[in-house]
Amino acid sequence: MISKAKVKFIKSLQLKKYRKDEQCFTVEGAKGIVELLNSDFEVIWVAGTANFLRENEALLRRNRIEVVETTERELSGASSFQTNNSAIAIAKLKPISPPVLNKEFVLVLDDIRDPGNLGTIIRTADWYGIKHIIASLETADLYNPKVISATMGSFCRMNIYYTQLTNYLVGTDWPVYGASLVGRSIYDTNFGGEGFIVIGNESQGISGAVHSLITNHITIPRIGQAESLNASIAAAIILDNVLRLKK
Amino acid sequence: MISKAKVKFIKSLQLKKYRKDEQCFTVEGAKGIVELLNSDFEVIWVAGTANFLRENEALLRRNRIEVVETTERELSGASSFQTNNSAIAIAKLKPISPPVLNKEFVLVLDDIRDPGNLGTIIRTADWYGIKHIIASLETADLYNPKVISATMGSFCRMNIYYTQLTNYLVGTDWPVYGASLVGRSIYDTNFGGEGFIVIGNESQGISGAVHSLITNHITIPRIGQAESLNASIAAAIILDNVLRLKK
Repeated sequence: MISKAKVKFIKSLQLKKYRKDEQCFTVEGAKGIVELLNSDFEVIWVAGTANFLRENEALLRRNRIEVVETTERELSGASSFQTNNSAIAIAKLKPISPPVLNKEFVLVLDDIRDPGNLGTIIRTADWYGIKHIIASLETADLYNPKVISATMGSFCRMNIYYTQLTNYLVGTDWPVYGASLVGRSIYDTNFGGEGFIVIGNESQGISGAVHSLITNHITIPRIGQAESLNASIAAAIILDNVLRLKK
Repeated sequence: MISKAKVKFIKSLQLKKYRKDEQCFTVEGAKGIVELLNSDFEVIWVAGTANFLRENEALLRRNRIEVVETTERELSGASSFQTNNSAIAIAKLKPISPPVLNKEFVLVLDDIRDPGNLGTIIRTADWYGIKHIIASLETADLYNPKVISATMGSFCRMNIYYTQLTNYLVGTDWPVYGASLVGRSIYDTNFGGEGFIVIGNESQGISGAVHSLITNHITIPRIGQAESLNASIAAAIILDNVLRLKK
């Protein structure tokens, strides 16, 4: 059984303020927790069903994790989601310093506000072997439970550095790619070996200040009639076109 | 002001049962409603802010729509979403018959359960000029407000036919493409001029019965370490690869 104090603690971590104060976050669901336990995150404790605890006994013991046995009903009550039939883990936030880059492609997120979009972008970036994401200060928080959930464990392998984007990008000599409705077709662009790929806000696109730092305007050619693409979809199509021949 | 009866009616349409009984659905937000008014859907009435009604006066008058002036606060109270600062429209469901296909690519959705994923897939398909989607009976309902919202108006241009997939696909002589972790790289596949592209369920992938009807197994090559891609992301990357040279 999860104590009332632990339930209250879990619920408090749905809010960024408390995640910052406590320097902790939650991971929900078997897939994300297994990836968490295999990562370099420090895990504090795990509440799981008898089934989850049995299936992951060796992993939990190797990491010397405090475990609490609980039921699906209790888990769902403590969860950020409607149902949780496996486990919740509490882990420590990881300090992130400015990334050291080495001839690679880096995603730059200019105010991605929707947690589902951010999580999906992290998952897709991990699929394509991206290691670093630079995010504006207004981008959704990586440790929001909805972001963590949508990454399906990929948060463990992605370094996300939150910073003021124009200050970060102004000195670079790498190309800065930005997608808009006008620009060179991604099918005809030679992306070379390194660069920043800027993905704009869901409704506003790339902000004016960041726009002025774009060196290469690109576009995803439209065949039909939709006015635009979802931000996470645009990011995925661009990554596929940048990296499709690099494997 | 929206009458209590109208608010109750709007809210009832959040549930599929009432949408079916009343043969009506809601569209929320300016972008979707403007597309709705320009489509062949029959619109019953629109509740909007003074601002929305003024900006779209000609369009509303041309369509002879009953309008109700309301406030953002009232709209948000009646809405399926946290906020609605423009309008809600009520429209009639459209009967959909089996599509008549003509040398084209058709998406086949094998139990896409998440409304956000379905809406995003419709929006992306519309971007790539897809006209028809065949959806399993377990796929989320097109007229769910979350689906309609995520399409950003593209629901007006997409024919979605819900049916039992194996019965539908069993007699076709078109190729049936299905993505999995094994298969031919989408980069090396010649997709030709027509075919069905099957997108599997978010957690289970393509079901066994449908899997047996796949004639061409394809895969999105992975460079990094994520175990899988979100269903709407996979659909987008495949569509981009199928249609990139067809414009």
